[in-house]
Amino acid sequence: MPRKTNARANAIATAQRLFRIQGYTATGLSQIIEESGAPKGSFYFHFPRGKTQLAEEAIDQYVANRIAVLQDISANTTGDALKFVRQIFKTFAAEMIASDFQYGCLMQNLANELPALDAELTQRVARGFVDSTAVIAAHFRGCGFTPARASSTASALVAALEGARTIARLERTSAIFKTLAKVSAQQCSLPGPRRTA
Amino acid sequence: MPRKTNARANAIATAQRLFRIQGYTATGLSQIIEESGAPKGSFYFHFPRGKTQLAEEAIDQYVANRIAVLQDISANTTGDALKFVRQIFKTFAAEMIASDFQYGCLMQNLANELPALDAELTQRVARGFVDSTAVIAAHFRGCGFTPARASSTASALVAALEGARTIARLERTSAIFKTLAKVSAQQCSLPGPRRTA
Repeated sequence: MPRKTNARANAIATAQRLFRIQGYTATGLSQIIEESGAPKGSFYFHFPRGKTQLAEEAIDQYVANRIAVLQDISANTTGDALKFVRQIFKTFAAEMIASDFQYGCLMQNLANELPALDAELTQRVARGFVDSTAVIAAHFRGCGFTPARASSTASALVAALEGARTIARLERTSAIFKTLAKVSAQQCSLPGPRRTA
Repeated sequence: MPRKTNARANAIATAQRLFRIQGYTATGLSQIIEESGAPKGSFYFHFPRGKTQLAEEAIDQYVANRIAVLQDISANTTGDALKFVRQIFKTFAAEMIASDFQYGCLMQNLANELPALDAELTQRVARGFVDSTAVIAAHFRGCGFTPARASSTASALVAALEGARTIARLERTSAIFKTLAKVSAQQCSLPGPRRTA
């Protein structure tokens, strides 16, 4: 049943796009249904719990994609903290340029709106941050960082990435990503504690 | 006319609070008017251009307050990059704890919603980031950093602060601020280029 699969995937992709451009509250179900090109009946067949269920699947898919991207970069820069950090900033900058700076981070947009609306969805976004930070920390441990240093460097990198996306969206240039890549690279080169082998 | 002044200030404070808790789109004028306790007629007397004008004044006041806080910290830590950075993270963490992690950053919330809605308001938020980053960079120059290093360290600090607020709000703890204060402090202690006197 390729039609059903497409309708489902289109609705999730449309929700992600609109949540990233204009936010969660601004995006009504009717706009999602209209822009995804699905008939209303088909939408409720796929998402009987409506916008909440759609948001759950949009978050899960976005987080899974973000983790896959990070794991891919990690696999291509094994044991190299500097290359890893530079590649992450480069990849996130390229993604923002590709959307002409229209797309914010889905997790950040939802993190700013959901706490007042939906505790379960908020938890889902929070887990997304924990899980992506864990992938980054694992890479740093693989570079010989102590677990404590790997964890704090990963948290700092995730915070910097989120802040950079806010600022890049406002400035409509990717300059901030280059600046932060340089600053984070210096951070990774610090003599700081390393695990004894 | 103290009543009028109060009605005006109350409306701006209520808008700031609601934009920070639930976002811009989720906050209708009727809720602002109701929660600020002002009669509707009085509201339109003070804000004839409605929500847009209220948002302009909410942004300007928030940015002015943020800059005053940063200048205050700068004055109390003259010439000391480490103390300056630590005090900033401590102050922003305390502010989030005081609201029981309910308040996001007004500038960040608006940065995620306004680009799709209002180019002029978006520019106003962008200028707020530029102006607060400039205060931080000036402090670092006063610590002997070269202008280039002062500027990149300031941009990294602002991005980290914004990301930290997103994450702290989700985690409902201020742990991320302590982690980032440590990482940023290491950054400030780097031997990096300094101005020749």
